Amino acid sequence: MISKAKSKYIKSLQVKKYRIQEQCFLVEGAKSVEEVVHSAFEVQMIVATQSFLDTSKVLLPKETEVLVANESELSELGSLQTNDSIMAVVRMKPNKELTVRANEFALALDDIRDPGNLGTIIRTADWYGLSKVIASEETADFYNPKAISATMGSFCRVEIYYTNLAAYLKDCSVPVYGTFLDGQSVHGFSFADQGLIVIGNESRGISAEVEKCIKTKITIPRFGKAESLNAGVATAVVLDNLRRSKK
Amino acid sequence: MISKAKSKYIKSLQVKKYRIQEQCFLVEGAKSVEEVVHSAFEVQMIVATQSFLDTSKVLLPKETEVLVANESELSELGSLQTNDSIMAVVRMKPNKELTVRANEFALALDDIRDPGNLGTIIRTADWYGLSKVIASEETADFYNPKAISATMGSFCRVEIYYTNLAAYLKDCSVPVYGTFLDGQSVHGFSFADQGLIVIGNESRGISAEVEKCIKTKITIPRFGKAESLNAGVATAVVLDNLRRSKK
Repeated sequence: MISKAKSKYIKSLQVKKYRIQEQCFLVEGAKSVEEVVHSAFEVQMIVATQSFLDTSKVLLPKETEVLVANESELSELGSLQTNDSIMAVVRMKPNKELTVRANEFALALDDIRDPGNLGTIIRTADWYGLSKVIASEETADFYNPKAISATMGSFCRVEIYYTNLAAYLKDCSVPVYGTFLDGQSVHGFSFADQGLIVIGNESRGISAEVEKCIKTKITIPRFGKAESLNAGVATAVVLDNLRRSKK
Repeated sequence: MISKAKSKYIKSLQVKKYRIQEQCFLVEGAKSVEEVVHSAFEVQMIVATQSFLDTSKVLLPKETEVLVANESELSELGSLQTNDSIMAVVRMKPNKELTVRANEFALALDDIRDPGNLGTIIRTADWYGLSKVIASEETADFYNPKAISATMGSFCRVEIYYTNLAAYLKDCSVPVYGTFLDGQSVHGFSFADQGLIVIGNESRGISAEVEKCIKTKITIPRFGKAESLNAGVATAVVLDNLRRSKK
């Protein structure tokens, strides 16, 4: 049984305003919690079902408060439709400036609004070995429970930095690539050894202000009739072409 | 103002049971409705705001019933959070068997459960010029409003056939490819001139029964640490490699 005060506190972390106030966020489900307890993140509190605690092999960090809840309590506390295992309250990291080094690629997100898309993009970046994402201030919150869930644990390995994206790109010294309908085909495209790849908003694409900072326009060739690709899908196709061009 | 009976009928189409009973589904938003009125689908009813009807260039089919609703009524009838423009009630197509022809590729979906993922996969198939999807019976419903929305209009150009997938694959004469963690790399892979590409369930991947029907296992090379890719993302990367291999 969880006290009303704790229940209210945990539920409040579904809302960005309270996450910022408390500097904490929710991690839900066995896989994501397992990743976070092995990461550099500081786990503040664990809530789990007794049956999960009895049978799971997830090593819980010492000195962390562990609360026991039944399935329906646990599901009610978080954003998942059902959760029969575990969730964690974790401290957010500060919004630290990120720099793209030599021989490194990173993503730049120009107003990705959907938390699920953001999470999928983080997971895809991790698959392709990218560990930095620069995001415009209007991009969905990295710590939104839906974004965290969609990363499937990759939030532990990919850092994000929210900033004025156009100003950041103007000052950056590496090549800046962006996907447009009228750029050079990514099939056989020769990327530099480092750079930033800009991904545009789900409906408007890349904004005019950010477009001015893009030195090279690239395009994913189309073979059918869809007008555009989902933002996460476009990210994956560009990164796949980037990685195969470097082999 | 919409009658209670009509409002109840339209809302009921958010639920699969009633879609099957009525053989109708919902198409929401200006872009999707514009695509559907120009397609082979039969539009049964239109609901739109007066301001949208006054200003829009969407040509409404003659002899279709058009109801006028205000924004809040329209949003309440459908699945979108807000809809200030238009929605349509459209007749479903029969579940017709699809065959993969010579020089054609199609997708086979082995229990894609999330309607949003299904919609993204349909949209991606359309981008890469595929027009047929064979889906296991447990795959999410193509006519779910979330799936239809996520296709961004591509539901008009891509057909789906629900069937016992393992039985279908056993009998099919074209090469069957499937994505696994231990297959041949898709980078530089040489696909045949026709075939089926199997996409597995979001958490379990491809089932043992379907795996038996797969002649060639392929893999998307990984460069980082994520354990897997989102199903829509994996579909896109495979199709991109398929199309560039054929140029």
